Amino acid sequence: MTDHTTGGASSALLTDHYELTMLEGALRSGAAHRRTVFEMFARRLPEGRRYGVVAGTGRFLDALRDFRFGTEELDYLADARVVDEATLDWLADYRFTGDAWGYGEGECYFPGSPILVVEGSFAEAVVLETVALSIYNHDTAIASAASRMTTAAHGRPLIEMGSRRTHEEAAVASARAAYISGFATTSNLAAGHRYGVPTAGTSAHAFILVHDNERHAFRSQLEALGSGTTLLVDTFDVERAVQAAVELGGTGLGGVRIDSGDLAPTAARVREQLDRLGATGTRIVVTGDLDEYAIQALAIAPVDGYGVGTSLVTGSGAPTASLVYKLVARSHGADPAAPLEPVAKRSVGKPSKGGRKWAARAFDEAGTATAEVVFDHEPPQRPFTRPLLRRLVDGGEIVGTEPLAAARERHARSVAELPAAAQQMSRGEPALPTRFEQRVGV
Amino acid sequence: MTDHTTGGASSALLTDHYELTMLEGALRSGAAHRRTVFEMFARRLPEGRRYGVVAGTGRFLDALRDFRFGTEELDYLADARVVDEATLDWLADYRFTGDAWGYGEGECYFPGSPILVVEGSFAEAVVLETVALSIYNHDTAIASAASRMTTAAHGRPLIEMGSRRTHEEAAVASARAAYISGFATTSNLAAGHRYGVPTAGTSAHAFILVHDNERHAFRSQLEALGSGTTLLVDTFDVERAVQAAVELGGTGLGGVRIDSGDLAPTAARVREQLDRLGATGTRIVVTGDLDEYAIQALAIAPVDGYGVGTSLVTGSGAPTASLVYKLVARSHGADPAAPLEPVAKRSVGKPSKGGRKWAARAFDEAGTATAEVVFDHEPPQRPFTRPLLRRLVDGGEIVGTEPLAAARERHARSVAELPAAAQQMSRGEPALPTRFEQRVGV
Repeated sequence: MTDHTTGGASSALLTDHYELTMLEGALRSGAAHRRTVFEMFARRLPEGRRYGVVAGTGRFLDALRDFRFGTEELDYLADARVVDEATLDWLADYRFTGDAWGYGEGECYFPGSPILVVEGSFAEAVVLETVALSIYNHDTAIASAASRMTTAAHGRPLIEMGSRRTHEEAAVASARAAYISGFATTSNLAAGHRYGVPTAGTSAHAFILVHDNERHAFRSQLEALGSGTTLLVDTFDVERAVQAAVELGGTGLGGVRIDSGDLAPTAARVREQLDRLGATGTRIVVTGDLDEYAIQALAIAPVDGYGVGTSLVTGSGAPTASLVYKLVARSHGADPAAPLEPVAKRSVGKPSKGGRKWAARAFDEAGTATAEVVFDHEPPQRPFTRPLLRRLVDGGEIVGTEPLAAARERHARSVAELPAAAQQMSRGEPALPTRFEQRVGV
Repeated sequence: MTDHTTGGASSALLTDHYELTMLEGALRSGAAHRRTVFEMFARRLPEGRRYGVVAGTGRFLDALRDFRFGTEELDYLADARVVDEATLDWLADYRFTGDAWGYGEGECYFPGSPILVVEGSFAEAVVLETVALSIYNHDTAIASAASRMTTAAHGRPLIEMGSRRTHEEAAVASARAAYISGFATTSNLAAGHRYGVPTAGTSAHAFILVHDNERHAFRSQLEALGSGTTLLVDTFDVERAVQAAVELGGTGLGGVRIDSGDLAPTAARVREQLDRLGATGTRIVVTGDLDEYAIQALAIAPVDGYGVGTSLVTGSGAPTASLVYKLVARSHGADPAAPLEPVAKRSVGKPSKGGRKWAARAFDEAGTATAEVVFDHEPPQRPFTRPLLRRLVDGGEIVGTEPLAAARERHARSVAELPAAAQQMSRGEPALPTRFEQRVGV
């Protein structure tokens, strides 16, 4: 979140220049103080996806807490002549005093789902656009990809190990998002430290190669980490390595890892060899350019766990969730009692639906979700529906923080409610239709 | 780089768990103290690309400086039982005391180019794998995509505005990488603050919509930012907006921005209208899902600048550079005079070339690059070649830091030297062949 070159803790400059020039213009015209509603949503899911997974909520609330313009930020903005003195004065006192509601982290979403609803003055709400979108777009893209991998793994544990293939801070957020979507562990130590995600890892080819030979390396690893460790067996010749692994580690050896080659037949041969050697409890972990399709293809292979890297941290073809943050309503004045009027641009090909939204998921009697219902009014409680907006910020106070485990549990429940089509890896339509309900008589 | 929840400044936990378990095993076996050479390279360019652009060097050197295990990091590792006491003690004193060489930041690279060469004890060098790869893989992917966009823009200025579509810290690094590859400005204020990248921005649709109407918004913006500003003209009806923009801003209006619709014909109509109204100097900036192909397609449209977002920060189809960091040589002992022996795994489909490498670019008499030459020995100075490795770290001292402008200039020179095929947007082979030269007699 912050800049290690300054050691600062502010998220306030994770902002686009134009938000501050808009602020300057709106302070000048007075529109800065109008009440507004901004909404975050996706016009569509990534191509062919059946559902998306909301993630980033907790990290956004942390960033909101730290969205303060201190001396360092203000000095930069002054020196770079980004905005005028009056605007700098306003920013010096910035605190978000409005309200926010959002989908619970880990919840599934669909086109048009109002994932985040921010209500406050234009000035307070407009400057949050970039930091909110950056966090949600990244984390949601990763969680959405991760959820499909969890489905494809059919209960076998998934290890997130993509840190090296993405920005070093995106790596930490990716590990967090993957955990929400059901991954068992991550390789990323910072994710363990910051978010309590369980970490895992044993050794790489470099460890084999720095020793005199493979047996030397295996002995070193077994001595240090015990026979429960996982030995990497594909540096030279898999069959000889497996032989040595069981010889040195015993039939109680924890696991072996295969990182190359044609994984399904290799895993089958290794399983057969391990069993023949008596190491019937030794697990086989496969890694190496796996995505949800490759995981699914390994469903009948004797594999006990998957390590997933590149495809996870790049969103498996959809590295951003394409969420947008749009002004959907505003008052003519700053008075909290002034009525909010829906607004929307009419740009070609990018239509928006004006007005504050609410949302609920509808279910059939068997408990299977049937629709995403988006309302232009606060809907009455109804049977067979579950409201989707949680209060995140109440008059500036952050009230939506929750343990990461809560998001992980919510995700598992939310996916389980979706119709069977949601579990398909093939490209297709969203698993639920999005239905807009207008207030009767409007 | 760091964690804003702790305010710490260490990069040491941006590390994969297995690096520390390898360290533990190697400390136990003694292999930790062997001299090693690790090399970062790409086995191939992203599919169809003609060249890649090295970026991240400066950020890696910053991370190396901050790679220290303090109390907070050590306490976490102890509590989470990642490694044993002896390993924690070793980490507490961690300082990289070895050497590193690398391609200059902004330099073009090809398959097999030794982008970064790290020489030090196994223990000191192996723990840098993840943080080095995270930084280089991200920044290189972005710089490589950005360079193609700069080529496609044929000198027209490019504005980087993708922050909202990527992780909030990846956004800052993306703005930096795009600037190296020739972008004129960024929307990202943190990139301005940290790296001195020029920032730009004016207003979004929300600014139009929060006002009573478009004219009200235009007046507010002109009052605050002056007539040199750029007005957004596609919220409702482009023709009426352009009419109003010139009426209110005068024929000296700085610019108009179009963010939707079919950009080429719209820009042509707007140019005609602006000229007719006398605003012949008013610039037209286009934004909205542009990539290098869309930019190239707009080459003959009357466009004065491009804003690029999503495709830039997602590497235009290649969000990671797929660089790897491999052990290529090691000694049998810790003695600095012990000979280094080449090592390489033989894993199926992922071959590595063992041994320390050097590299130079070869040119013809006209100064056009003809080959990327990778040596297994320090090559003699030759005419028509340019050595590619710069000293980055000398006995633990970081000596390779340079101003960002130097990387930007290096990039412009490096691209200009490549053969014409490098400028093609179409998919094809690398613009230069990579040639390995072995020491005569070996």
